[in-house]
Amino acid sequence: MTSPADLARPDLDAARTAYEQLKDLGMKLDLTRGKPSAQQLDLASELLTLPAGEYRAADGTDTRNYGGLQGLKELREIFAPFLQVPVEQLVAFGNGSLELMHDTLVHAMLSPLPGGERRWVDEERVVFLCPVPGYDRHFSVCERLGIEMVTVPMTDDGPDMEVVEQLVVSDPAIKGIWCVPKYSNPTGVVYSDEVVRRLATMPTAAGDFRIMWDNAYTVHHLTETEHEIADLLALATEAGNADRVFVFGSTSKITLAGAGVAFFGASQRNLEWWLALTAKRTIGPDKVNHLRHAEFLGSPDGVRAHMAKHREILAPKFAAVERILSEELSGIEGVSWTRPEGGYFVTLTVPPGIASATVALAKEAGVVLTPAGATHPYGRDPDDAVIRLAPSFPVLDEVEKATRGVATCVKLAIARQGA
Amino acid sequence: MTSPADLARPDLDAARTAYEQLKDLGMKLDLTRGKPSAQQLDLASELLTLPAGEYRAADGTDTRNYGGLQGLKELREIFAPFLQVPVEQLVAFGNGSLELMHDTLVHAMLSPLPGGERRWVDEERVVFLCPVPGYDRHFSVCERLGIEMVTVPMTDDGPDMEVVEQLVVSDPAIKGIWCVPKYSNPTGVVYSDEVVRRLATMPTAAGDFRIMWDNAYTVHHLTETEHEIADLLALATEAGNADRVFVFGSTSKITLAGAGVAFFGASQRNLEWWLALTAKRTIGPDKVNHLRHAEFLGSPDGVRAHMAKHREILAPKFAAVERILSEELSGIEGVSWTRPEGGYFVTLTVPPGIASATVALAKEAGVVLTPAGATHPYGRDPDDAVIRLAPSFPVLDEVEKATRGVATCVKLAIARQGA
Repeated sequence: MTSPADLARPDLDAARTAYEQLKDLGMKLDLTRGKPSAQQLDLASELLTLPAGEYRAADGTDTRNYGGLQGLKELREIFAPFLQVPVEQLVAFGNGSLELMHDTLVHAMLSPLPGGERRWVDEERVVFLCPVPGYDRHFSVCERLGIEMVTVPMTDDGPDMEVVEQLVVSDPAIKGIWCVPKYSNPTGVVYSDEVVRRLATMPTAAGDFRIMWDNAYTVHHLTETEHEIADLLALATEAGNADRVFVFGSTSKITLAGAGVAFFGASQRNLEWWLALTAKRTIGPDKVNHLRHAEFLGSPDGVRAHMAKHREILAPKFAAVERILSEELSGIEGVSWTRPEGGYFVTLTVPPGIASATVALAKEAGVVLTPAGATHPYGRDPDDAVIRLAPSFPVLDEVEKATRGVATCVKLAIARQGA
Repeated sequence: MTSPADLARPDLDAARTAYEQLKDLGMKLDLTRGKPSAQQLDLASELLTLPAGEYRAADGTDTRNYGGLQGLKELREIFAPFLQVPVEQLVAFGNGSLELMHDTLVHAMLSPLPGGERRWVDEERVVFLCPVPGYDRHFSVCERLGIEMVTVPMTDDGPDMEVVEQLVVSDPAIKGIWCVPKYSNPTGVVYSDEVVRRLATMPTAAGDFRIMWDNAYTVHHLTETEHEIADLLALATEAGNADRVFVFGSTSKITLAGAGVAFFGASQRNLEWWLALTAKRTIGPDKVNHLRHAEFLGSPDGVRAHMAKHREILAPKFAAVERILSEELSGIEGVSWTRPEGGYFVTLTVPPGIASATVALAKEAGVVLTPAGATHPYGRDPDDAVIRLAPSFPVLDEVEKATRGVATCVKLAIARQGA
């Protein structure tokens, strides 16, 4: 008997032959991490000679010396509009927002948050909601700190708010939710205004509930449409929930991935809590690097102009992935993929039980993919169906070859399963 | 009746007159923090134009991108001899060693250390020994983390080891000790080989006891004598206690105070523990800044040559303090001060109950001093007798004026007490 699904299943022999040919190419390609390419880093090469002897901030501060816990104001002014945080509530800090997210949760583990009754280490359970597919490094921070993770499905508009609202109102152990609100990692989803509004206003059982608003891709557009999201901090403040918002961002994918500047923004009360704890930890961030960045980027328009150059490099790579996946995988039952308009990832969904096999086949053929399951807490995708593709780092030709290789592996994995 | 002590007590009227004259000068001087001066920072002005377009590490790594958790090898090679840590066991990280000390203790709060049975947050008490006078920021890290502090007297050779040995062997709650082994903050004491050997070999009740070896001033000599200390990590390793040593250092007072590089070193087992936890926190340190520093300093000899320039600037300031304190305070009962051969501080000891009054008088006259008590845990110097002077930041003329001002205040405070 031939079912309609069988019609859309690749032929095993053909898939095997294609896969053997792929292996014969002896490729060594990597689609794992959302790293900018050398060409993108070259866009910021001027940073390697800045601040060119200059060391005074606009207010006269000698950036070379100690101090200045909140970071250079002129740099915060450039990023405040993109992160939707008033400049006086924004901190510019070290070279990575992951550190800021980790350390902020560490502070919460060891000191009661505004609105909280006790340190999180003194709670019986601390639970975070994790929209899936999501970002593996968010999950590993939770795992490291002993924060339990509960998954929430992603929709095309953001996390499924019916589920979120029901959970947070009923369980005071739920202390937070991870969100990448624009061009989400890895789905590319842009949160709708309605989702942002509901996040800002929903009742929560925990007095110290926090939204980890990782706005990592706020200016990382892949099309001419510069998607905007609603202003979570403003909406939450309006609703009397100002303290539930922690905003994070960085220049890691704007200037230099390893030598950029990260940002933290929050309500005045949160900020005071955060600065008081951070003051015990450090005498201040690298303000010379802040100055370097302020000089290089200049203004919000400077950032926009710079990101347009990134788009010129990135958009063809994403277009290549889209084109090749369409050529190779269109019409195959259970296979779909995202067409992100920003950010760093394409999510490839395959039939249940196929993702790990695809990743293993690709590895054998010299194409390294993010481990299947990495998009889910504890590395466990219950459907084994999600593969994250990161086309930013390899050159265009390699992206094309790697994507075609992945498609070949998907087809073989499906054909094998059906065999 | 006139006692010998009275003979050595300043005359109240003369002291009052001198103090009024001091106030009339309307000075605004600051001897509070161990900050390098602008002139010292200028010594590293080349850093503001480096790495000058270069971005490859010696091994070909693109320093601009993510990764490289342990930091650039060529920079670690330069500092390994000064920190007495094998290069493969040394980490180069962010812009401050205080962060590294804080974060390492945070890791211990939240994950069992090698040799430990449980996380420190799960211990009933965690106690650190604090040789006094000591560094206020060490104490505030403990206070922030809920680590109890027990003081140990400093001798001219380091902490009083009779006391240390007796305490650590008898109480398993004692998990650590703070040490600034060379040109100690604020006493300038250089730990004797015997003290280092006893720290390395002493039995401890806690299996996860740690020595926080803050070697902040390892190359910060004020004389031609480059004092050496015994190699704690090597001695501890030899004695089977490799895991008890955490070494810290930084270039904060070598290159740029706010934009330098900090280091962490430890046994292989500690290092694995540390890197595994740090990998959850960050994708890597700012390797461009590492490269910048490696290029600028070049080699251990480059560091030595650079520090000789610092000495040329700093030694006259310390000499001025010594000269003026001698002129003004010699022979006054209960008053003494240190003559450090390196580091950043002079410790001025005044008769019991006089330190706070002196600091308050100085403030009123426009000379800001570190708060009395700051050299002790919880800001409480039980004798109220220790004042920390930091002559590095002001220019020489200001150091002279401020020191004379402090002497005037000491004399008035003593004369008042006797009145």
